[in-house]
Formats: sequence, structure tokens, C-alpha cells
Amino acid sequence: MKLLRFGPAGHEAPGAIDAHGNIRDLTGVVPDYFGADISCDAIARIAALDLTQYPIVDPSTRIGACVADTRNFYCVGLNYALHAAESGLDAPSEPVLFNKASSSLSGPNDNVIIPRRSVKTDWEVELGVVIGREALYVDEADALNYVAGYCLINDVSEREFQIEKGGQWVKGKSAPTFGPIGPYLVSADEIPDPQTLRLQLALNGEVVQDSNTSDMIFSVREIVAYMSQFMRLMPGDIITTGTPSGVGLGMNPQRFLKPGDVMELEIDGLGQQRQVAVAAD
Amino acid sequence: MKLLRFGPAGHEAPGAIDAHGNIRDLTGVVPDYFGADISCDAIARIAALDLTQYPIVDPSTRIGACVADTRNFYCVGLNYALHAAESGLDAPSEPVLFNKASSSLSGPNDNVIIPRRSVKTDWEVELGVVIGREALYVDEADALNYVAGYCLINDVSEREFQIEKGGQWVKGKSAPTFGPIGPYLVSADEIPDPQTLRLQLALNGEVVQDSNTSDMIFSVREIVAYMSQFMRLMPGDIITTGTPSGVGLGMNPQRFLKPGDVMELEIDGLGQQRQVAVAAD
Repeated sequence: MKLLRFGPAGHEAPGAIDAHGNIRDLTGVVPDYFGADISCDAIARIAALDLTQYPIVDPSTRIGACVADTRNFYCVGLNYALHAAESGLDAPSEPVLFNKASSSLSGPNDNVIIPRRSVKTDWEVELGVVIGREALYVDEADALNYVAGYCLINDVSEREFQIEKGGQWVKGKSAPTFGPIGPYLVSADEIPDPQTLRLQLALNGEVVQDSNTSDMIFSVREIVAYMSQFMRLMPGDIITTGTPSGVGLGMNPQRFLKPGDVMELEIDGLGQQRQVAVAAD
Repeated sequence: MKLLRFGPAGHEAPGAIDAHGNIRDLTGVVPDYFGADISCDAIARIAALDLTQYPIVDPSTRIGACVADTRNFYCVGLNYALHAAESGLDAPSEPVLFNKASSSLSGPNDNVIIPRRSVKTDWEVELGVVIGREALYVDEADALNYVAGYCLINDVSEREFQIEKGGQWVKGKSAPTFGPIGPYLVSADEIPDPQTLRLQLALNGEVVQDSNTSDMIFSVREIVAYMSQFMRLMPGDIITTGTPSGVGLGMNPQRFLKPGDVMELEIDGLGQQRQVAVAAD
């Protein structure tokens, strides 16, 4: 299944992609994709529907974030060795965890707003994981059974806010539009091995990030099992699993987003995103 | 207004305290206290009700978390100078921000579960702030207008998970039951100055934390305005504003929770909590 949300920002409706690539409108058939309504069980109920019975959506309709808000938007830091090195940091011995504000979520093709007083807004293509079952103290062997699906995420980051304003990274990860996700959530059955996916990001047409999830230091399986030792993961929680090298922070000279810059992202099987950077009001 | 939730864990109903201290059952009258349903506007609608028209709840009923889950459970670190010192850290020049998992929320008198493999579970009495209006780029002069109300929080913390497992504190702040809040949310109109509140925590009857919110390094007003420069704060978001000195980490020798330990917390005007520490299954 590929699940997505479409319509004006703040008024999205739930939908799914049919066998022919059409968006089908599931308004009134399923609730919005939030919390328990995007669990493994909820996805199984959607998979049992005959999508041909539902209206086709105009393909020019705006696509929203594929998860409707979230209670927890967790991030794994420094999960690719070359990115840790370009950030001037050692590769971690245990997963580094932090958060984005849930209010940073935005559609995959919405503008990315450079915050007021920002001079170091940066890009990060990442594999996103959406939790499908409550997970506490789960083993690595079972961990992927707690995953509802996967999606493409741009973990947009403001490096001065993140690094130069006193401890803890949430400050630089949370501005509105800093969390484009989607276009769709791909259910876990369609991604049997999340560690074989090429991921890329191009800035103004130039590929600047080009890696594979096989290069992760900690696999999705390891991350879910590890996190579940510290917190109860809940259906609808999002975990973005870290970015490979090629961010602006790591360039020489460093390079950050300016209004008009275009980011194009892609992960095998998870679709594409395109965002234009704009200045905050 | 004092708003609270009562009933079995996971099945709480919304209520309010009437002029005589009774809990009134607002089931079916107001939605559960989540997101926009705990906004300033929503509280104003509840304040217009004649509470005497609604059933009185048996006072022995369990009290749940006064906010029903939350999208973002933000924390301010090191916000009292003596606590920064006892933690071996300098007082910050800007607020230190991090997160707790929303799944850590629990009732004010529920047991606190010491996680598996924990040897350093610790206590932190704190003033909690619940956001009542969307706040982005707000000024300090206006910041308190974005607050729905205040509550008592025990920011339970596992120090090994927090500090000794590689960067970022969310790991040590997020276990189930690490977020007792309540007993009630006190609407902002009843707390004209949040910087004049005595807060205390006793461990097994001995007062170990005893301070006043006047000792905060960054006031509630400053915190809300500051955070709104980095993220859009949303109705129902919780901000816990840091703990004063007297935590187990700062004692000599250090002292951490063991099963059977009893924590009793109180903040002027915000009620009391009592938790017993128990071992995880």
C-alpha cells in the first residue's frame, strides 16, 4: 500500500494509490492518518478495500505530509560514517537521538521556509520509519514487525540554531516546513529490506547527496530495538534515520540555502520530493 | 479553572473542579483535553459552563495526566543556577531545549516505573506550561498570552541513559511513567505571575528540593518567546521549565530511586503529587 494525504494545507484528506497509480479518495472511509489510525492493523484494513470503488483525485492536487501530525518526531543523528566525519564528529557508538517539533511537518513539495535570522539552513535526505505497533523492550529480531511503513524525509536543519546556541539539537530542526515527508507512506510489506535503498538529494540540479541505506551505522532494525529500551514507541511516531554525507555544513566552503534554491530528493521505492526555498515573512 | 482527567489509565474522562472542590464530570460536554481542545479558547468555553449542572465524581477515582497525550513534550534544561552547578555544568546563556516522549505522560499519583537496566532513576519537580495558542515569533511582552495554563510535573530522569549513552537527553527522559503531570491544569488567569511559586519535592518524607520559580534563569515569558523563534508552538504542547537543585545526581554520595521510594511534590496553587517507585516487569 501507498498511503497519502491530499488537499489544501491543514485540510488534507486521506487517500491511497491504486494499481494504476491513481490517487483514490478515502474520505469518510478511513480516518485521517494519525496515531492508531496509521497502525499496522489500520493499514491492513485499508489493504482489504477495493480501491476502484473510490473517487480518483485530480493528479494536480497538492500532496500533504503522509502522516497527519504526529506525537513524536524522533531523529537519529550521525548515522552515516561519512556524514559524522563531515560534521567534525566521531561516529557514535550508540544511536544519537533527538527530536523535531511535530509542527515542522509539511508536504513533500511545499516550499521550505528559511526562518527569520537564519543564515545556515541546510538539507538532509533521510529514510523515514513510521511505527505501527506499541514497542517497548523489543528485540532486534522482532523490531521490523513494529514498523508500519517507510517514507522519504528531508530533515531540514538550521546549523547555527542546532549547534551554536547551547546544547541539544531540537532548536535547529523544528522550524515550520523543516519536515517535508512523503509523497506517500509505503507499507512495510513493500520494503522487505530497508537497508538496500539508494537515497539522493540534488540542489539546483546538482546531486550533492548520493548514498544507500546499506551505509547506515545502525540499521532500522537496530534503531527500533534500541529506542524501545528507552521509550514506548507508539503507532504514528516517526523516526527519521539520519542523513548521508553531502550536506551544506560539510562542504568547503560551506553552502546554505538561499531563496530560490531547489531541492529534489528521491529514495528507491519511496518516491520523490521537490522543494523551493523561500524567505520567512 | 482547574481542569483534570479522571478514570482508569487509557480511559480517562475530562472534568473540572467546581467552587467547592468537587470534580465534575464533563464527559460528552467537552472533548478530551488534547491539542486544540485545551486551547485558551476551549478553556474559555469551559469557564462559561455552570459546573453545578454536571455529575460529581467519586473523589477516590484515579486522576490521570491533566493533558491527554501531547504532540510535543518540550523541556528546558539547567534553568536554575544551583541545579546547573550540582550537575557539573555552567549556567546556560540561552535556554537549553530537549524533549520527553509523549508516551512518558502519566497520572500525578501513578507508580513511577524504574526502567529495565536502570541504576540512576532520579526526580525533578518542575513548573509545567501548557500552550494555548499557536506561537511563532512572539515577543516577550506578549508571550504569556499564549499560555493556556500551568501544572505540576515530575520530570523523572534516568541519568545513565541521559548522560552516558552518547549525546542528547531524550533517551533518559522518556520511559513510560517518566512524566507525571497534574493533578490539574490551572488556567493562566489564576496564576498572574508564574515566577512567584514555591516548588518542593520530598523523598520518603525528607524535603530534598525546595525552591521558588523566582530563581529560574529564564522566566516562562522568556522561554515561550525564545522557543517561538525556533518552532511553532501549538495548543496542547507542554513545556516543563527545569528543576531546582536537590536531585539525586547532585547529592554526595549520589542517590537514586529504588522500589518502594515515595516522592511527594507540590507547587503553590498547582496541587500535589505522590508517586511510589516500582521495578519494571
